[in-house]
Amino acid sequence: MSATTSKLRGYVGLATDLRAGKTTPRAYLEETFKRIVELDPAIGAFVRLNQDGAIAAADASTARWRDGKPLSPIDGMPIAIKDIIETADMPTGQGSPMFEGQESHRDSASVHALREAGAIIIGKTTTTEFAATHPWHKTQNPHDPKRTPGGSSSGSSAAVGAGMVPAGLGTQVVGSILRPSSFCGAVGFKPSVGAINRSGSHDHFSQSCQGAIAATLADTWAVLRAIADRAGGDPGFVGLSGDVNFAMGTKPARLGVLETGGWSVTTEGARQAFAAAKDKLAKAGVELKDRRDDPDIDTVEKTIADAQPLTLAINAWEGRWPLNTYADYDASKLSEGALGRLKTAEATTQAQYADLLTRRVAARAAYAKVASKCDAFVTLGACGAAPVGLGSTGNTAMNVAASLLGCPALTFPLLQDEGLPLGLQLLGATDRDAALFDVANWVARDAFGRADLVGAG
Amino acid sequence: MSATTSKLRGYVGLATDLRAGKTTPRAYLEETFKRIVELDPAIGAFVRLNQDGAIAAADASTARWRDGKPLSPIDGMPIAIKDIIETADMPTGQGSPMFEGQESHRDSASVHALREAGAIIIGKTTTTEFAATHPWHKTQNPHDPKRTPGGSSSGSSAAVGAGMVPAGLGTQVVGSILRPSSFCGAVGFKPSVGAINRSGSHDHFSQSCQGAIAATLADTWAVLRAIADRAGGDPGFVGLSGDVNFAMGTKPARLGVLETGGWSVTTEGARQAFAAAKDKLAKAGVELKDRRDDPDIDTVEKTIADAQPLTLAINAWEGRWPLNTYADYDASKLSEGALGRLKTAEATTQAQYADLLTRRVAARAAYAKVASKCDAFVTLGACGAAPVGLGSTGNTAMNVAASLLGCPALTFPLLQDEGLPLGLQLLGATDRDAALFDVANWVARDAFGRADLVGAG
Repeated sequence: MSATTSKLRGYVGLATDLRAGKTTPRAYLEETFKRIVELDPAIGAFVRLNQDGAIAAADASTARWRDGKPLSPIDGMPIAIKDIIETADMPTGQGSPMFEGQESHRDSASVHALREAGAIIIGKTTTTEFAATHPWHKTQNPHDPKRTPGGSSSGSSAAVGAGMVPAGLGTQVVGSILRPSSFCGAVGFKPSVGAINRSGSHDHFSQSCQGAIAATLADTWAVLRAIADRAGGDPGFVGLSGDVNFAMGTKPARLGVLETGGWSVTTEGARQAFAAAKDKLAKAGVELKDRRDDPDIDTVEKTIADAQPLTLAINAWEGRWPLNTYADYDASKLSEGALGRLKTAEATTQAQYADLLTRRVAARAAYAKVASKCDAFVTLGACGAAPVGLGSTGNTAMNVAASLLGCPALTFPLLQDEGLPLGLQLLGATDRDAALFDVANWVARDAFGRADLVGAG
Repeated sequence: MSATTSKLRGYVGLATDLRAGKTTPRAYLEETFKRIVELDPAIGAFVRLNQDGAIAAADASTARWRDGKPLSPIDGMPIAIKDIIETADMPTGQGSPMFEGQESHRDSASVHALREAGAIIIGKTTTTEFAATHPWHKTQNPHDPKRTPGGSSSGSSAAVGAGMVPAGLGTQVVGSILRPSSFCGAVGFKPSVGAINRSGSHDHFSQSCQGAIAATLADTWAVLRAIADRAGGDPGFVGLSGDVNFAMGTKPARLGVLETGGWSVTTEGARQAFAAAKDKLAKAGVELKDRRDDPDIDTVEKTIADAQPLTLAINAWEGRWPLNTYADYDASKLSEGALGRLKTAEATTQAQYADLLTRRVAARAAYAKVASKCDAFVTLGACGAAPVGLGSTGNTAMNVAASLLGCPALTFPLLQDEGLPLGLQLLGATDRDAALFDVANWVARDAFGRADLVGAG
């Protein structure tokens, strides 16, 4: 990267300096803007910025820190919002020509909670169409302009990976947080199903989650806990729980190793990087168990072998609406991909959907059984480095298992492939998201020597 | 009632005549319009009609029946839509001055499914603000203009109770389908939680259900099965299942009797009517069991004794959004009730919500235990006849148990209080909605001699 400005790192790690007045949210925001002005004309991570609103929010936050009364650990943190999530002060285009410039005049539950916590909603970031299909916005990977940043949370991942902002909101129903985070060299976290209130976001699938992409583990956790404290989980779910401040890193006794159905399409470089990562974990004293060691892990591998087609079939039925009413309104504004999905949906029956759900229930039950045996599971964050080309956002094969299982999953940029970022992915037990972060901290700091990725204050 | 036109009865019962060409959807629609023109200026059930669209849809349906190719049993049936549910051809006002005339240009999943089934979306009906709080629209009870029709599904219930339309869509999170149906003399059905896809309806609470209010049991079932076949349940739920055609009525061996926490506020007339109904069922040979007969039923009664405050507390937290972002936009357009709910929400914590959910889980577990012992449960459809006054929509005390329990519940106008309609309510086992209809058919036809309320073709 040839940028002359400094890549932004974590925000919540600055708490001591913020309290001491050595830096301020206003100063941090100005660095953010400099970086965006320098890099985003090429990368194209943002579809819209609210500079005036951000400056006013930063000044208010600066005053709160000066008075010793920050609203939360993320008070003053600039956050980018995937353009599938509603914001009262900016339109929500859903990555679709049909909704370009569309104002809803309301914040999503998560964005409202972030504002209540003092965070700065800096702008809206690119998404593929309806967070699902065509990449109308040709956002570039910050590490190589010829490559995709991944999707569907393309802009939030590219903005964080480029060091323009410390954090962004994303959503995932297949692989839309984990994959772009891996491709862009960011931390990406998809929580347990239901853990973050999705109200006011256009992601209504049963596997959908709202999550965060950030420079550090501490920022990722702080952003999502700030939301859950104020907006909870999806209605009927308690929501992400655990200490708002960052958990310590506890050494895991045993990690399970999952290949998942994606293993057959990983690159040779990714496999080598993963083998080296396993060696590093073993040398640090962690017991590793895979399908060859434990028949219950083998059962999980078998139930998730077809996670990708199973998830796409579930999503097809669940996505019949709103695609059908959008097609009635103006089919010419839907991509070929969206129209194809609608056709699949209309060929699916309620009885077929019931069978798909039964298969998902079986996969989740198999996973719950092994999740009690291991502190977490480790796999690759993506099939390899970001592929060349901006017309596709890459293969979801390594990311879809966590979506199907509904479990928390986190990727952090600990590996490389082709000299480009590649994530190591950790999967945790469903609704034990805080425990996953506890393991992740240890892995980053103690096994990989990357205290910078932990980023605690 | 002094209307000169005839009260519309069921639609699907006309199938033989429709097939034979003895009547047509166009003719039925014209009767519908006559009735609306005559009665609705006083009653005020509709906020908007789409007459041109309805006529075109009726003509298309007439042609399909003539050709022997109806799309479903409800092809040509005029249906009123509660104005909390989105429609592509009419605005969705949500019963709020803030959203008066607001166009979304899309159908909800349910409305789209109804159109696919050939139904005629005739208009939008009044709702209290956000299906929850102030009755801005002063809809009258069709049986007494000084009395409330109940709410929040006020207009759909009044329109059906007045015989203007055979069916309307409603929603319930506390008592918003069952209560107004009881007050207006209609059949009202709140399905199991998740049974009908709520996408595109502004009811996002964890206990929310979309359901139907109709002239007959057959119409109620046909409308909802038509939706579930084409739009399924909420994402992640299979959705209402069972034969699309109407189930036979099977005599139940045993019915449980629930008083619920609402018993203490029922009227003397309602209690007498209920006692007579129990006698009738017993004389028809059904074994009745109440809390005095079975300690497990007593446990259920204890866990639902505070269903009303527990539900309101759950809804408060879940309703923090969108009330908070609406208040930011223009608090002057929110009722005192809505602002009060927001205040309660903001005083609630995530930890308190977790406790509330734990109590709900306990109530549902207690109910599941007794649900396996009885074919259904019987109670009152409301605390009594509709109360006088249009400023309140009446007490939800007899209706909230089914919402809290997430079970299917049905009320039908078999009783009277003060010479006005009063419903008998049946509650079924969760996700066994078809079995509840089977019992309901028998109760209406065989125990009460009301084959007209069954309405099968």
